[in-house]
Amino acid sequence: MSQLNKKPTIKDVAAKAGVSVTTVSQILNHKGARFPTATHKQVRQAVADLGYVANFSARNTRLAVQRRTIGVLVPQIQNPFFANLFRGIQDYLYDQAADTFLVSTDGDNVKAQQYMKQLIHRSVDGFIIASQLDGQDPLLKKLRRLRIPYVLLDQNEGDQAGDQIIVNERQGGQLVATHLAAVKQGPMILVVPRQQSANIHLRIAAVKAELARRQVEIAAIYQTSALEKSAGALTGRQIMQDFATAPHLTIWAVADEVALGIIKAVRQARKQIPENVKLMGYDDTDYADYLNLTTIHQPVVTIGREAAALLQARLADPVRPRQVIVKPVTLVRRDSTSDD
Amino acid sequence: MSQLNKKPTIKDVAAKAGVSVTTVSQILNHKGARFPTATHKQVRQAVADLGYVANFSARNTRLAVQRRTIGVLVPQIQNPFFANLFRGIQDYLYDQAADTFLVSTDGDNVKAQQYMKQLIHRSVDGFIIASQLDGQDPLLKKLRRLRIPYVLLDQNEGDQAGDQIIVNERQGGQLVATHLAAVKQGPMILVVPRQQSANIHLRIAAVKAELARRQVEIAAIYQTSALEKSAGALTGRQIMQDFATAPHLTIWAVADEVALGIIKAVRQARKQIPENVKLMGYDDTDYADYLNLTTIHQPVVTIGREAAALLQARLADPVRPRQVIVKPVTLVRRDSTSDD
Repeated sequence: MSQLNKKPTIKDVAAKAGVSVTTVSQILNHKGARFPTATHKQVRQAVADLGYVANFSARNTRLAVQRRTIGVLVPQIQNPFFANLFRGIQDYLYDQAADTFLVSTDGDNVKAQQYMKQLIHRSVDGFIIASQLDGQDPLLKKLRRLRIPYVLLDQNEGDQAGDQIIVNERQGGQLVATHLAAVKQGPMILVVPRQQSANIHLRIAAVKAELARRQVEIAAIYQTSALEKSAGALTGRQIMQDFATAPHLTIWAVADEVALGIIKAVRQARKQIPENVKLMGYDDTDYADYLNLTTIHQPVVTIGREAAALLQARLADPVRPRQVIVKPVTLVRRDSTSDD
Repeated sequence: MSQLNKKPTIKDVAAKAGVSVTTVSQILNHKGARFPTATHKQVRQAVADLGYVANFSARNTRLAVQRRTIGVLVPQIQNPFFANLFRGIQDYLYDQAADTFLVSTDGDNVKAQQYMKQLIHRSVDGFIIASQLDGQDPLLKKLRRLRIPYVLLDQNEGDQAGDQIIVNERQGGQLVATHLAAVKQGPMILVVPRQQSANIHLRIAAVKAELARRQVEIAAIYQTSALEKSAGALTGRQIMQDFATAPHLTIWAVADEVALGIIKAVRQARKQIPENVKLMGYDDTDYADYLNLTTIHQPVVTIGREAAALLQARLADPVRPRQVIVKPVTLVRRDSTSDD
């Protein structure tokens, strides 16, 4: 019986590539991200040489899992900024035959580690990471070691390996300071988070630098415990108490969610925005529009889509040059800083 | 050499239980949800009889995946109601050594099918499903066939197998109608979604029944395309156009997110809430408070926690009696329906 007439099997592919059957199976099922590029090449070459057609198991065929799966890490899905970012990622990837699992880390690095371990264990094909990470985070080292591709968002320093999308925080900070210098009344107050990711650190530094350049004095800087409405409300109540006798104030909050908390505190203190307090946020979440909040617009859905596209491109070609995309921001003027 | 002194291996367990090594491994790794209960019992009995101690592979030990993984399906993570629901689920499960992967189905049944296939393929241990499903949905049939436990939320009919948490929609509808009947000015308008899940259908029916009982006439019912702000704004603009000459209106929106869109449309029409338009929502999302929206409060974080607890209990004891928990709701009065 001639070998030539036999249909090639996965064993033939493994033998020709010099790897195990499991390795071949995992690579052909998009679960081989942890194998070296060379192994991928050997397997694909053997498949091509032998004219092998994968005989997916009955279960795989039934479940139609020829699609990829991507893990998305965000710090707080309760923040509509990240919900819209995820929408951009998900919409793009679904159309590109990739499914998205979201995990929300609560800004907790232990949780982030744990969830990422689970996602890796469940053999996801790649990651989009919008959570705050230290530059030398062990999570990123692990992904590089396992050769699982990832795209970083909002991480401006430390990592020189993954593809990245960076928002132009320096421009954002300048726009904040320039606008507030023009509309300012009373003491100028900044509300910043206690723990600052690289991008937020840059944002704050740019605001301070531009205010200094314009010789606008900062009366006080308050630290808030989280980028959440409730934390913003707590900080806002402290500000309203400390500046109870000031007829006018100008406040910049590092994120819209924090600004919404401050709106609540201002109302509770029976003061008016913008008559008594001029308030500005950052992010342009959907709700900023409904609450008439002046803010900085980041093209968040577009950022999500572009991050997804970067990851797809990286999965298709693991050795392509590293990409870093910088996105511009714009000022959105609303009633909260108006001059009436 | 005596067999008695040999440490039992996974092969010994498999032989004693009369199943394959893979079956034993998957069951001991919490990935055996698709095996019959009898198989689980055989394996656990063999482990106990032999005094077998699992020797998790180096990789498993490193990744510490003794934890379970739960898939959570929501229709729209952009809706803060579902973000808070997820927070309740996640907080509870993380402390109970289970990790949560979230998928957002966009209310699209094809997407829901696809994501659930992926989650099953990645061997998640159970599901919490807040997405809209038909009573006889094939997804639920598949889960039952694979013996993967699930908890349903907001699904009031059709499924008689899974554990369930039901919000008392009849009570909610009565509270809406009773309040609006008391504050009503001008024509009464309802804004409901085109596609109605079982719980929303009940909610609307209860509002209509109570309004009828109180002899309050419904002037118009508008159908909105989705439970989103943008869809609400579109419907709101149509209402403002159709009732342009009415000095007063009373509007109930089926969900807060839709009501927020209507707030925008009312402002654009240069009308005032509550002077010209009395507006009420449903859900009591965080933003309802910031926008002074009268609404119905559902204890959403608690519902999330209780759903997670139900699933944990089911995973621990697959044959326990089915649980159905009904949660009460409360009326939250704010300025949008005030009488001033």
